[in-house]
Amino acid sequence: MDLYSPTEADAVIIGAGPVGLFQVFELGLLEIKAHVIDSLPVVGGQCIELYPDKPIYDIPAIPVCTGRELTNNLLKQIEPFSPQFHLGQEVTQLEKQADGRILIGTSQNLHFLAKTVFIAAGVGAFQPRLLNLEGIEAFVDKQVFYRVKYPERFIGKRIVICGGGDSALDWVLYFADRAASVTLIHRRDDFKGAPQSIAKMRELCAAGKIQLLIGQITDYKTQEDQLTEITVTDIDGNTKIVSLDDLLIFFGLSPKLGPIAQWGLDIDRKQLMVDTEKFQTSIPGIYAVGDINLYPGKKKLILSGFHEAALAAFAAAAYLNPEKQIQLQYTTTSPKLHKALGVKPATFE
Amino acid sequence: MDLYSPTEADAVIIGAGPVGLFQVFELGLLEIKAHVIDSLPVVGGQCIELYPDKPIYDIPAIPVCTGRELTNNLLKQIEPFSPQFHLGQEVTQLEKQADGRILIGTSQNLHFLAKTVFIAAGVGAFQPRLLNLEGIEAFVDKQVFYRVKYPERFIGKRIVICGGGDSALDWVLYFADRAASVTLIHRRDDFKGAPQSIAKMRELCAAGKIQLLIGQITDYKTQEDQLTEITVTDIDGNTKIVSLDDLLIFFGLSPKLGPIAQWGLDIDRKQLMVDTEKFQTSIPGIYAVGDINLYPGKKKLILSGFHEAALAAFAAAAYLNPEKQIQLQYTTTSPKLHKALGVKPATFE
Repeated sequence: MDLYSPTEADAVIIGAGPVGLFQVFELGLLEIKAHVIDSLPVVGGQCIELYPDKPIYDIPAIPVCTGRELTNNLLKQIEPFSPQFHLGQEVTQLEKQADGRILIGTSQNLHFLAKTVFIAAGVGAFQPRLLNLEGIEAFVDKQVFYRVKYPERFIGKRIVICGGGDSALDWVLYFADRAASVTLIHRRDDFKGAPQSIAKMRELCAAGKIQLLIGQITDYKTQEDQLTEITVTDIDGNTKIVSLDDLLIFFGLSPKLGPIAQWGLDIDRKQLMVDTEKFQTSIPGIYAVGDINLYPGKKKLILSGFHEAALAAFAAAAYLNPEKQIQLQYTTTSPKLHKALGVKPATFE
Repeated sequence: MDLYSPTEADAVIIGAGPVGLFQVFELGLLEIKAHVIDSLPVVGGQCIELYPDKPIYDIPAIPVCTGRELTNNLLKQIEPFSPQFHLGQEVTQLEKQADGRILIGTSQNLHFLAKTVFIAAGVGAFQPRLLNLEGIEAFVDKQVFYRVKYPERFIGKRIVICGGGDSALDWVLYFADRAASVTLIHRRDDFKGAPQSIAKMRELCAAGKIQLLIGQITDYKTQEDQLTEITVTDIDGNTKIVSLDDLLIFFGLSPKLGPIAQWGLDIDRKQLMVDTEKFQTSIPGIYAVGDINLYPGKKKLILSGFHEAALAAFAAAAYLNPEKQIQLQYTTTSPKLHKALGVKPATFE
């Protein structure tokens, strides 16, 4: 798949959070197959990234569930429609073509030509939080890294790892024996990762196999365009210099509206303006559902996104087949919907 | 409670179907207590009246549930807000008062003075289907009955019971030994009730304790303003005369918009017109949610009713407290909502 042979699709959903997943279901009931793209490597969106194990109380008819349970239930519900997921890639390009279709490009260079697009991007694509240090961006993907794509690249190097969560700890443990040296830097002596990872890190530290510094990177030095050392400053203002080959930053992910702002859609306060009949953006065939959209009365509730996904699906069905009369059928009684859902007739006599 | 001392309320919900129940929840989160009125003797609305044991597939994050399960889950979800139910009575009167409050009267002569009203009446109040026979309405509640309020009234009488479901069968079995005679009339020899009830009825019939006629009532005779006999006609046109004291009709329930049409609200095709920001009707403070409302794009989906209930609750909170800023809080993170839900802090650390 590349720009010159994009995948043709009736529907592409941007965002695999709960609303994006339910959009698959509502489109599926209307016999529209969907591709789903998400910047995260797993489905679930904020539910999985921000509160996988925390209880949610306001999903109708589910007195309590965690973000992970909600996601798993939705995955089970959309199973009959076998959506195609394209994860770990951001949609970087979205352009209406002369023939009315929408060209979509991702950061992994996938391309789609879609008749309809559903932007269910929540608060935007989750991106690594960046190290705030003037000029450091020049070294990104050379000596400064926000994700480890090729671990072998760091073997035998003097590496510095920043962060206090599982990503930072996991890589500290992984490189402890493999790198020339590992220095872990965190702004306070309090880690958020798995207790056994924290314990292991403390052991390595006590054994002198890694170094732990509490503080923040406040400066750096370069030599012949190479990053050579960083300055770490603690809470009392004491500084320490660390020589290094590579710097790995794990400050967590934060959502960014990102490229969506460049697609020519009407935007108000970082949200896409839609009507409340079709939940269509300012470009026909492009719908926006869930937290990313805005209309009078909008509340950022998952249950509102579900409703919006249903109405957007009906609007898209009419848009895809303008001559066809779309009737609302009920999953309890419609043999057509039972067939789509893979329900055996005998089970609902 | 009577007209002269109506119950004062912040919110009265008309209809205890799934959307009416979820309205309790959304109001509860905003600290608004609600009374709920329904014409049926139990909660659940159409879910319980029409498909208690049939599967529903399109409630978000619930791959499949029956109407009864949906109702039970909603009841569990609203438990923390302990709504007051007033069942088995229709709302017959709804009038905006000079002070802005809404006077509500029910068929059991309860009265409420409510600051806000939520009409979640679905397709209307469920009413007994009537016997279609010219002039028979003159005998209703004298010798023709659509429900049995005082069973002792029929003891020792010659009664005719019409219908093929559980209500008809249950009363046939009940009166078999108590009435002077019991004749069961059903339009075809095929009953829909519990198998054991059908079997018992057949036994009584074989033993000559009751009489079963297959056909329909096509005529009746009177004497001195008393109903004295009916004519039953079978599918081949053969007729039979049955003398009787009382006639009990159980043709099931069917929804009727009924008095709602008389309340001065804007109506289009039997639905209440609302906006999509507040889901408010043409009268301020009166909201309509679920299948009873109409707006551009409206689909009669339970999930849409849930969304409408949420937005109507926020609108009502602003209406009740115009000076107060209402902020959207999340059940996952808000200590205030946890308190309202009765969640112990320790369980979501």
